[in-house]
Parts: sequence; C-alpha cells; structure tokens
Amino acid sequence: MVWAFIVAALLDQKPLFGFNASSVQTELSWEARVDSSIDPRDQAQWMRTLTARPHHVGSAYGLINAEFMLKLYQSWGYDAQIERFYVLFPTPKTRLLEMGSWRAKLFEPTIPSDPTGKASSEALPLYNCYSIDGDVKGKLVYVNYGVPKDYDTLEAHGIDIKGKIVIARYGGSWRGIKPKVAAEHGAIGCIIYSDPRDDGYGQGDVYPKGGWRNEDGGQRGSVADMPIYPGDPLTPGYGATKDAKRIALKDAITLTKIPVLPISYGDAKPLIESLQGPMAPPDWRGGLPVPYHLGPSTTDVHLKVAFNWDTVEARDVIAKLPGSQYPDEWVIRGNHHDAWVYGAQDPISGQVAMLNEAKALGGLVKDGWRPKRTIVFCSWDGEEPGLLGSTEWLETHLDELTQKAVAYVNTDSNSRGFVGLEGAHSLERFLNEVVRDVQDPETKVSVLERAKARAAVNAAPAEKEAALTGDIKIGALGSGSDYSSFIQHAGIAAIDLGYGGEGDGSQYHSTYDSYDWVMRFSDPGLVYGGVLSETGARVVMRLADADELPFEFTHLAKTVEGYLKELSALEDSMRLETQEQNKLIEDGTLSKSFDPTKTNVAPKPKDVPPFLNLAPLQNAVARLAKAANALEVKRKSSAVPDSVLIATERALLGPGLPGRPWYRHTVVAPGLYTGYGVKTFPGVREAIEQRHWKEAEDQTVIAAAALDRLSSILEKASQ
Amino acid sequence: MVWAFIVAALLDQKPLFGFNASSVQTELSWEARVDSSIDPRDQAQWMRTLTARPHHVGSAYGLINAEFMLKLYQSWGYDAQIERFYVLFPTPKTRLLEMGSWRAKLFEPTIPSDPTGKASSEALPLYNCYSIDGDVKGKLVYVNYGVPKDYDTLEAHGIDIKGKIVIARYGGSWRGIKPKVAAEHGAIGCIIYSDPRDDGYGQGDVYPKGGWRNEDGGQRGSVADMPIYPGDPLTPGYGATKDAKRIALKDAITLTKIPVLPISYGDAKPLIESLQGPMAPPDWRGGLPVPYHLGPSTTDVHLKVAFNWDTVEARDVIAKLPGSQYPDEWVIRGNHHDAWVYGAQDPISGQVAMLNEAKALGGLVKDGWRPKRTIVFCSWDGEEPGLLGSTEWLETHLDELTQKAVAYVNTDSNSRGFVGLEGAHSLERFLNEVVRDVQDPETKVSVLERAKARAAVNAAPAEKEAALTGDIKIGALGSGSDYSSFIQHAGIAAIDLGYGGEGDGSQYHSTYDSYDWVMRFSDPGLVYGGVLSETGARVVMRLADADELPFEFTHLAKTVEGYLKELSALEDSMRLETQEQNKLIEDGTLSKSFDPTKTNVAPKPKDVPPFLNLAPLQNAVARLAKAANALEVKRKSSAVPDSVLIATERALLGPGLPGRPWYRHTVVAPGLYTGYGVKTFPGVREAIEQRHWKEAEDQTVIAAAALDRLSSILEKASQ
Repeated sequence: MVWAFIVAALLDQKPLFGFNASSVQTELSWEARVDSSIDPRDQAQWMRTLTARPHHVGSAYGLINAEFMLKLYQSWGYDAQIERFYVLFPTPKTRLLEMGSWRAKLFEPTIPSDPTGKASSEALPLYNCYSIDGDVKGKLVYVNYGVPKDYDTLEAHGIDIKGKIVIARYGGSWRGIKPKVAAEHGAIGCIIYSDPRDDGYGQGDVYPKGGWRNEDGGQRGSVADMPIYPGDPLTPGYGATKDAKRIALKDAITLTKIPVLPISYGDAKPLIESLQGPMAPPDWRGGLPVPYHLGPSTTDVHLKVAFNWDTVEARDVIAKLPGSQYPDEWVIRGNHHDAWVYGAQDPISGQVAMLNEAKALGGLVKDGWRPKRTIVFCSWDGEEPGLLGSTEWLETHLDELTQKAVAYVNTDSNSRGFVGLEGAHSLERFLNEVVRDVQDPETKVSVLERAKARAAVNAAPAEKEAALTGDIKIGALGSGSDYSSFIQHAGIAAIDLGYGGEGDGSQYHSTYDSYDWVMRFSDPGLVYGGVLSETGARVVMRLADADELPFEFTHLAKTVEGYLKELSALEDSMRLETQEQNKLIEDGTLSKSFDPTKTNVAPKPKDVPPFLNLAPLQNAVARLAKAANALEVKRKSSAVPDSVLIATERALLGPGLPGRPWYRHTVVAPGLYTGYGVKTFPGVREAIEQRHWKEAEDQTVIAAAALDRLSSILEKASQ
Repeated sequence: MVWAFIVAALLDQKPLFGFNASSVQTELSWEARVDSSIDPRDQAQWMRTLTARPHHVGSAYGLINAEFMLKLYQSWGYDAQIERFYVLFPTPKTRLLEMGSWRAKLFEPTIPSDPTGKASSEALPLYNCYSIDGDVKGKLVYVNYGVPKDYDTLEAHGIDIKGKIVIARYGGSWRGIKPKVAAEHGAIGCIIYSDPRDDGYGQGDVYPKGGWRNEDGGQRGSVADMPIYPGDPLTPGYGATKDAKRIALKDAITLTKIPVLPISYGDAKPLIESLQGPMAPPDWRGGLPVPYHLGPSTTDVHLKVAFNWDTVEARDVIAKLPGSQYPDEWVIRGNHHDAWVYGAQDPISGQVAMLNEAKALGGLVKDGWRPKRTIVFCSWDGEEPGLLGSTEWLETHLDELTQKAVAYVNTDSNSRGFVGLEGAHSLERFLNEVVRDVQDPETKVSVLERAKARAAVNAAPAEKEAALTGDIKIGALGSGSDYSSFIQHAGIAAIDLGYGGEGDGSQYHSTYDSYDWVMRFSDPGLVYGGVLSETGARVVMRLADADELPFEFTHLAKTVEGYLKELSALEDSMRLETQEQNKLIEDGTLSKSFDPTKTNVAPKPKDVPPFLNLAPLQNAVARLAKAANALEVKRKSSAVPDSVLIATERALLGPGLPGRPWYRHTVVAPGLYTGYGVKTFPGVREAIEQRHWKEAEDQTVIAAAALDRLSSILEKASQ
C-alpha cells in the first residue's frame, strides 16, 4: 500500500508501546488517515441536529436523537442497535420558593440573540433530580458549600441547623452532597444557588455579552446519593430492564431526605440579603453585593417542590465493530447523548467528537483496516440524572463485560484548551504516548507538550523541571461521568479524556448551553472537537490493534506508593492537629481567643488518632513495585498474554466499601462526602477521616490483599 | 504608706524587669492607683469635645483643640506649651472626575442618624494630600493594588500604561506607593478607590446599619513619597520653624508626579464597569457586582484636581513632668490630635487614652509620686498629611533628643480587641511584662494571655505550643504613625501600642469616623480606651521609674538572626525562581502555555542572583548573640548605667539608606515600595529585591558595622 508507506516515511519513527517494531509504521499510517478524515464541520452539523430541541432522558427528541445516531453508526458499517432501559426519572410538577411577598423567578428567559438556546415548553425547568417532594417553611441559614466542615464552622458560631432551610452555593463538592449533609444536620430543605463569584460575573462577562452565567442562569442536576450507588435508584446493582424487579420508591435510599431546589444568583440575592446573625467567614463570602451573614433570617422561607415520579425509557445506542483476531476482547468507547436542556457542550461536544471517530474508523474499515479486537461505541442515555444508561447497561451485561472488556474510554463535555487525562494508572504510560502524537491545532506542538508546559508553569520552582521531563501523571477517577461503573463496580480499566481550560465561559446545565454559545465561547469551530476525535481514535485504535496490550505497572506502583504516603501524612497531621487543638480547648486558650460579645462555641475535644498499622499496605506496595519491575524485564523477551493484562484491574476489586458495597474498587472511589472528587484507597482514607480507627486497619488489610492479587498476577507472568 | 502596702500585698509578687526587689511593690502599688483613676467616661467627654468639629492641621478647630489640651495638661500640673511649626498643607480647590456624561459624586452626605459625623463646610472633602495639580484625560486601566508586581502582570497581558489613567484599589501597600509606581510606568493620573470586598459590604453591614464603609464613604489620605522622607515637604531633614529656609515647591521630591484622587465604591462602579480587555486575574477581582477587566476603557476619563498650596500652622502640645533623679533622661509619649475630618477613632480614641494617662500621672504626683526620669507628653498635630508635627519637632530638637531621649511610646487609633505591640526589639521582654500586668476588661484575663491565645489558635499545629509558652514577638516598626522619625531618623527606641481586632467596622479617614460610630462599633463605652491608658501608663511609669532601664538584647539578637535567615532565604528563592523561570522563557515552555487567542507577553529572562557575601552580617549577628548573653550574666551582679542602654539604639543608625538618607536605621525602615510595611535590614533586603547585587553586599557591610557597634557597647558594659 503505497499511500500508507509514504505517510509512514514522513512520520518520525517512534516506539509505540504494545506494538512490535514491524507493526508501528502501519499503525501510524492508519492513524494519520484517521486524522485526515476527521472534520469539525461534520461535528458542527451533528451538533446542530442533536441540539435542535431539548433532549433529556425519556424525551421525545431524545428518541429522535438516538435513532439519528443509530442510523449514522449503521451507515458507517457498524452493527448497531438501541438498547432500552426503564428508569425512574422524576420531573417537576410544582416549584415554589417565596419569602414574604417575594417569589423566586426560577426561569431562564429567552435571550433574543440566541435562538439556539431559547425557552421551550419541552425544556426541563430549573430543578434538582431525585429531590423528594416537600413543602417546608423555616428560617434560612447560609452554609457556604454545604460540606461537613462548613457545619463545624456553623456550630462554632452557635448556629443551629435543626428545622432550618439551608442555602448553599454550588461548588466545593458534588451537588448531591449538599442536601445529604444538610439533612444529616437536621435541615428541612436545601436551596442551591450559583454564586456570581464562582460562576458568573466574577469569572467574566455574562451571557450574551460574554460566555459566563448571567443572573437568570441556573444549574440543573442530580442530587441522588450517588456515592452509595449510581444508576436507577429502583434497581440497585442490576439492570433496569423492562421486567426487572424494582424496589419500592420509599426504599430507594439514594433519593434525598429533604426537598432541594437550584436557583440563579438573581433569585439568590434577596435570600442572602435576608440573612442576619454573624458574618460568614471571609472565604465563604461570594460575589453578590451584600454582606454574607450566616443567618438565620428573620423571615420564614417557603420551599415547595413536587415531582412526577415517572419511569421513562433510556435509549443507549450501542455500535460494534468486530475484532478480527480477538473478537471477544472489547475496547469500549462511550459518551452520553442526553442533556438537561439543549446540552450543546454537555454532552454533545463530546458526543459529536466520538461520532466523528466512529465515522473515521468506519472509513478505515472500507479501506481494509481490521482491528484485532472488537470496538464498541456507546452513546449513552440518562447520564445526567445518575449515569443511568451506562450503569444499567454494565449491570445488565456484567458477566460478559467482566470476561471481555479490555478497557473503557470515556469522554463528555469538551472545550478549547489543554488535554485532561484521568484513568487507570496502568494506562498512564500508554496515554502519554497517545497525547505525544496529537498536535494542538492552535500552537502546532503536541498536546502533551502543551500539558507539560502548563504543568511546569504552574509548578513550584523546585518542581518545574520534573514537570517537563517525566511523563505527565494522569488523575485518579472519581465520579461524574459514565466511566464510574466500569472501573468502580466492574474493575475495567477506564479512561476519561477531554480538552478544556481555554473556553471562555460556562453554562453548565443551563438552557443557555446552546449551539451558539458553544460556537462563540466554548470551542469556536469545534476545533478542539476535532482534536478530541484524533485523541480518542488513537486510544481506541491502539488498544484494539496492539500486538501486546499497553498496560504497564511501574507507573501504577509508584502512584499507589504516593497514595500510601498521603495516608500516613493524613494520619500524622490529624494526630498533631487533634492533640494541639484538644490542648487549646482543654486549657481554655481557645475560649480566651473568642470575642466575648459574640456567640462562639468551643468544640468538644476529639479522640487522638492512634498509630495505625499500615504495614500490610506498606508491604503490599513494596511487593507490587518489585513485581511491576520484574514484569517489564520479562516483557523484553516475551509478550504478556491479553488475558493476564485484562485481569489486572479486576484484581483490584474487593468486597465493596463499608456502607456502599456497590463500589468495589480498592484504590479509587468517589468520596462519600465529596461526590465527584476521588478518594484513593477509599476504604482506608475515609475510615481515617471519619475517625473509625478499627475500620481503617481492616480496610488496610483489604486494600493490601487487592494489591497482592495484582502482584501475584504480575509475578506469575514474570516467571 | 498603708494604702500602697495593702495594694501590693493583694497583688502577686512579680519580678519587674529593671526594678530592684525592694522597688517592685511600690511600683505596682502606684500602677494600681493609676488603674483606679482611669475613667473611660473622661475619655468619652474629651472625645465629644475634640470631635465636635473638623480639626485637620491648620484648621480653626484644631487650634481650639490644642488650646483645650494645653489647659488640661496645665491643670494636671504639667509644664505645657504649644510648639508651632509652619508646614505645607495643600487643600482642594478643584476636584473633577468624569467619563462621558457621568460625573463622580465625590461627596459623603450627612447620615441623618449620625449628627456627630455630618457633612460640614469646615470638612476637607475627599482628596489625597500632596497630589500635584493636574488636568488629564485618558483611557482607564485597572492596576489592582498598584504595587510593582501588579505592573508585571499587566505587562504580561500586553497592557500599556503610558498615557493612561490608572484606577487602583486601596490596600496591598501604603496609598502613596500607588501614584508613585503608576507614574514610574508612564501613567498620567491615578484614581484610588475603596473596594467593597476589602472595605465595605464584603466585611460586614455598612454604615449606619453596621460599622463598615458604605457606597459613599471614601478614604482621604496623604500620598507624599514618605519612604523618601516624612514631615514637611519643604524642610527636608530640619525643623519647619517660622524662619526656616524652605525649598521651592518644584524641588519638593515627595510630592506626587501625577494627579491623584480617592473615590468611594459608589463612584468606582461605573469606572470599573467601563473597562474592556482581558479579565483581571482572580485575586485582583473585588466586590463590585461586575466583571473586573484590566482595561483599557473605550471612553476617556477626565481627572482634574487643583489645590491651595498653603503653608499652615501645626500646633504640637508638649507637656513635661520633670524627673526627680535623671531630669535629662526623657521618656516621651505621643499621639496625634489632628484628623482628616472628625477623626473620633483616628486619632482621638488614642489621644483621649493618652490624656487619661497624663491626668492619672498628674494625680499620682499630687499624691507624692516622683518619676526618676522626665516624662514628656506630646499631642502631635499634622500627622495625617505626613507625620508633620512629630517629625518637625524631632528635627528641630534632634541634638537634644539624641542626648536625652530614653524611648518614645506611640499610640494612634484604638478599638476593641487584642493588644498589638510593635517596637524596638530591645524592649520586647519589657513589653511582655507590661501586658502580663494589664487585665482584659471583658474576659478578665491578662491582655498578654489573650494575645497569646489568639496567636496559638491561629498558628500552624506544630507552632501552637511555642506561641503559648514563649514571650510574644513584637513586630518591627515600619511607618504610618509618629514613631517613625524617633526610631528611623534619630535611633530612639520606639514603641507603638494599641488594641484592635474586635471592633466591628472601619471608617478609616472618612467623615463617618465619628463619635457615634466609635461608640456603636469601634469601642463602645471606650472600654478599650481605658485598657490602653492602663497599658500606656505602665510603659511610661516603668521606663521612668526603673532602677535600671529595661532594655534587653538577647531577644533582639534572636530576632535579627531571624531577619538574616530571611535574607538568605530570599536570595536562595530568587535564585531558584529566576533560574527556573528563565529556563521556561528560553526553551519556549512559557509560550506553549499561553492561550494563542489572547495577548500574552513572555517576560525577558532576568539575571540570576549571584551568591552574595552575607558573611559580615552573619559574623556580626553571631557576635551580637554572644555579647547580649554576656551582658545578661553581668547584670546579675551589677546594673548597667542608663547612658550605656540609651546609646544602644543609636548604635544601629548608619549613614542612611541608598537614595533616602533621612532613613538612618539599619535594621528597620518603611519599604520603598510598601510605604507603611516594614523592611528589616532594609538596605540589604531592598537591594536584593531590586537586583542590585553590589549594593546588597555594600549594605551588608553597613548593617554589620551597626550591629558591631551595638556589640561593642554591650561587650564593654559586660567587662
């Protein structure tokens, strides 16, 4: 094939991890061909179609979109189908928020200059999904981001939360944490607002002059207790198929305990202004032009929400390209297609990039390319309410996926800027190679170089050099998109990719996340949609084509060693802090620092952390480092079989985390009180954070056993 | 004296540094008697009188106040007089700020509920004193706090300052730095505003609901280049007596180079809103409900100011109580009496506390008390425009003061809260003892304990214990009140005392700094005015009564050792930062991190700091530590004569700092680019900061010589 030969000759000859020297040029030439067939104009056209009407899960236009994508996949030669699930999806019947004669607007009006983001009767109004019904009246208290430590601060100021309605600003945690923690402290209702300092004029010019959230814009979103389990609240741990047995609504523990409503900062202003009591601490104060008091308000606030508790159809579009050599090894690629309203950025910017990859790969097949392993494209439905489409699909096919899945590659919203990489640490080396080979369209250097440049510029002086010379570290996966069930429930090595950091605005979960907004502010011309396609296609192709799967464990061993050090440091700093703080409480020093004219409550002394036995994990980490090195030596002479490498991430599954057994991964999980934010060695770390010392040691043994299982696999393969 | 005996018996027997065992009880009994004669009601009455009309330097009511205080001192038995100086004091003739059809209000209207802070034809309007006349038009640029590094940021964004009018927010430096740095970068005018985040509703409820600055409130203040020299701009380095020779106005280098005007945040809002261009960095964004752009504005701003360049009379009230044993050793106590408008807090809260001390000491004299050393109370005029009254008095009497002054004890504004201590480090041990013996009226523990409690609570966990057990460290003196010329020009050990941190508001340099405002928010009942009197009286009495002057040098030696370590650390961190930053600039990494759609300018590489020879200072610090310890050993057997101890601070004077020889102290000076903020080892530190490596080494030798002179004195006394 002369064409491929010429292209390969033009490329630098690079090593490709997992490819024999003889396969490298062929692979690179196919990749170059993919690049040339990716076209942001295709993406823009699909985006226009997919965002023409609101398309949340179960909606009329959601079905039209699913069928549109189905036809695209089929036209590109895929074996595609729509797989349906039946999921609980409450939508608002009543939304009322008032205080005296004032009533919240709760509405994002049409902006005349943006016909692609107009108000519509099909659009879901501002609401938080999986809030319970409720009709409550009470005084208002401001709780900052509404995370546990914020309540410690309120308690120190003598503010009682019981019977109050709390108002929390977005940020600082996943939104579902806010009503959960509020309810744990006795609140009867929860209002979440977008503060203009974090998400409005404090960031830049507001829409439509600029790209940032305006005073009417609000953030919809799920408030299910996803750190317990994601997916359909009525089918925990198994697929929400037509005939699946469902638990009763009252037993669905992931619903909130109190009613919740999100509001704009225009609506929040009179509420924040109504607060009396002590000033909020300096770092709690937002961007509204009023003093932020903690509360309570003198006037009662009335919050009423009621929902249609419907079960709706979620439509996953699943498109397969069978592998020529290992058809039962699946490289899975996914991005959701449902949105809160128009969702041009979230999720369509990622969806159209993925469609472009699928089209390009379909084109290669017509030219004779045959991936060794099966490629499965998944356009998920119902991500927004709670990763419904991906979770139910995974739970339905858990046995098959446990056997066949090589890796899962996720994308979601995308915009201009720098590549962001998270994922299974065994794929760190591989991902560094992928982004080495993708060019940034604006600066004409590799996206790896740009990412390293940013890391070096932002690093402390003593760390700049390391940021430039080593591989970039990929982040650990928490939650917040469809990779969650793959890695955390099924132990499938997962990756999350995307570009960002240079988009000029945010309309996250607003009606104004529209086609026009994306084209003006988020990714003009979808240039970075194109780059995402080039990146995603390379990941998928290399995983599908590799002679030996590009999993590698010395990076992983080094990373978990770092996590272990963090645990030791956490324990030590908690011990020192507790000792010193207890002393100040007990000897009256803390009280002497108080302003006697203000209410201040000294906390009770806490139990001092004992020295924990982390030795099992220390030994397991040391063994893993050795095993990982030995495997790399062995690999120089002979390849490791796919079956061995596929098993490695599964080895990290344990019996499930305390209180939330759905989460089985021992190294990464979303935090019980952070939501999206990852906790590494979650069983151990959260036990320490919650001062459950016995549990921390038990979890240490469990995590050590998981690492030991991985080490055993590597050691066996090295013999 | 039975009365004194009983009181002493009730008191714990404490060691008093500088007092023989036989003198301690007598001293403590006199102090107890002072406490019982201090009465915040007296202070409130004087405050009402002194703040009844505006009383800036040269004003009609300023004279009435001076005469009122003169009579008080005389009635209490002091040998008192008014000493007059004739100082340049420009007041506004024209103030205009406009943009298109908008015109700034520049006015603080009467608040009906506060008759004590009403608008008045006698009141100085919002203006910055020692701004030059000017009438300029230009585009507006936002420069954050307007300190040098802010201009680096602007340059990195490609913003040209030449020919622009800058708008800076108050804070981050002394206000006079802002027009100085702006002019150095080519600006033609400077507007300074009070941002509501730092100084308005971002801090609490605004006046009159709460104590914080409202949208009309502004901050007057001097913008002379005081880090060059304070005092009358026309008589640099010598007293502005009636017949003194004055330099021409055009030669007065401490006047600004460009016109300056301060405005409220109400007036600032349309200006900030008019800015275009890139967003300001996150930490530049203030509390106005608009996006903060760097600028420039599209519309021209017109700024016009013109002044009456009058010479006015400054009236210092000087009141002496002659010493019985050492009449030619003077303990000097001062607080200014001039204000920008009513100045109930600044300076009258401190002035009335000092008057209360003077009254109490006068009472003791009637009861038979005779201080060993002479006490001189000074109610200064003209502090606000530039420490005029104190500086001109010191310069006039420099020879006598050099010979006679034991120490200078300053106060200024006071409010509720914790004691704050700054001063000559040789008085650190002494001051710790003073505040050990003053009780906090609200918590009934010593103000030392409260200060330590706050320090411990705010310290990092590993440093909490040290904060509780050791002496509290007193801060080094920069500038901003009348101690400046004493320590920095004359080498007289100076102290600055005050309470604060629990007042609920700020009306700094506003019309609303009124009697009512103080009583509602700053120090209700002037309770802390009373505590300040108790503290100040103890300092003065112990310095005047001590058997041996309570100067001590091991604390000083330890502190300057810390300053030296900071210099080494500064040099090292600058070297590392420069090397690493240069590398990123030179290899293109920095450029790769830039958003190519935005203007970013990579800075030029800077010269890497060489390794500086700090050895002379290292040796001098080591010698001083040894000498200080030896003196303490010697003192156990014999007292050190006053003449030796008085000479110690003088020994720290050098030939004057580079470019500003008026500042002669080698260990402390206000920063050339911070204004009030202190620089320790200023000659060396500023040379390093400004990358003048040769000068840094020269200044090291000068500072070392000063420490060596001090060591010689101590060594000689120890023999």
